[in-house]
Amino acid sequence: MSKFFHLFSGGLDSTVLLYDLLDQENSVFCLLFDYGQRHLTELNYAAATCEKLGVPYERILLAREMFSRSALTAGKVLTVDELNGGATVVPNRNMVLISMAASYALSHGGTAVTWAANADDSAMYPDCRSEFLQHLNRALRICHTRRMEVHAPYIVRTKRQVVEKGRELGVPFDETWSCYAGGKEPCGECGSCKVRAEAMS
Amino acid sequence: MSKFFHLFSGGLDSTVLLYDLLDQENSVFCLLFDYGQRHLTELNYAAATCEKLGVPYERILLAREMFSRSALTAGKVLTVDELNGGATVVPNRNMVLISMAASYALSHGGTAVTWAANADDSAMYPDCRSEFLQHLNRALRICHTRRMEVHAPYIVRTKRQVVEKGRELGVPFDETWSCYAGGKEPCGECGSCKVRAEAMS
Repeated sequence: MSKFFHLFSGGLDSTVLLYDLLDQENSVFCLLFDYGQRHLTELNYAAATCEKLGVPYERILLAREMFSRSALTAGKVLTVDELNGGATVVPNRNMVLISMAASYALSHGGTAVTWAANADDSAMYPDCRSEFLQHLNRALRICHTRRMEVHAPYIVRTKRQVVEKGRELGVPFDETWSCYAGGKEPCGECGSCKVRAEAMS
Repeated sequence: MSKFFHLFSGGLDSTVLLYDLLDQENSVFCLLFDYGQRHLTELNYAAATCEKLGVPYERILLAREMFSRSALTAGKVLTVDELNGGATVVPNRNMVLISMAASYALSHGGTAVTWAANADDSAMYPDCRSEFLQHLNRALRICHTRRMEVHAPYIVRTKRQVVEKGRELGVPFDETWSCYAGGKEPCGECGSCKVRAEAMS
């Protein structure tokens, strides 16, 4: 039987994928990585969703100093322009999160890591591209005596298509969090808010 | 100019590689990962070597729960048989350490990560094999807008050849630490002590 370790940020895409995996009756364990992101609110949304759905999860604190130079983790207040520039790229973030999730899955009887990267992400983030995932999977399949890999079923779908899938599954979108700005309410102006609004329109 | 971020455990191989990189007049910054290994002594050796050589370094605390199931990190006292069995394999450890080092290097102007895996390691640890490194490098080269990769110059050399290189460079082997057992003196009986003694004989 499949046992998936799901990279769950509490954002729209990873929430839809969680509902999708459960809809297909998979066994799922969620991994919530706290890497000092200014939008830590998303992890509270993730934890609330896990509790609501009865899905086991663990919140994992990553070494903060690893990501200290990105706008996504900086302590200071940033302008929308700063948030929308390349500054939100956390170098190699996805390889770090995926490799840790794979390690965790291998230690706890998992069969694969699940990751909700979508086709729109790849324009801004090189480590969301299919080619990156393919190379990483080739390394993961031979990293241990037991096979491991990442499933990223949405990497060929646009965010709009992910939203459609979410609607089909009845995902409560108001229980997901996308804003990068770190406020109590979504700012509506950062790149992440805009991409979300566009996909849902 | 090259600026290397060196995965430095304080063991024999990574110490020889550090001396080797400095001998070739490279700029080096050492990353010391604390993942709860029972042989944390090695990191004190690493820090002492950095201070002696005037090499900048950072000690990074990794999320302990990631590696909690391996004999290398278990809190309990283990027999030599347990230490020498497959139990010392920390699943996907090297991808985790390399990906974090790459992220750090990308954030701090580094040109590559250096890693002292040797040809003998690959028998016991799948994630020390050349093939694994090749796939990982293909992913790393495209993980970001700027190219990153791992240099592992000893991956084609036996540990005996690494020792020879160390002798050539005048590396003080008594300032390196290999034992897995976690005592104050090397136990002389664990796999790591034996492999070291064999290579130095």
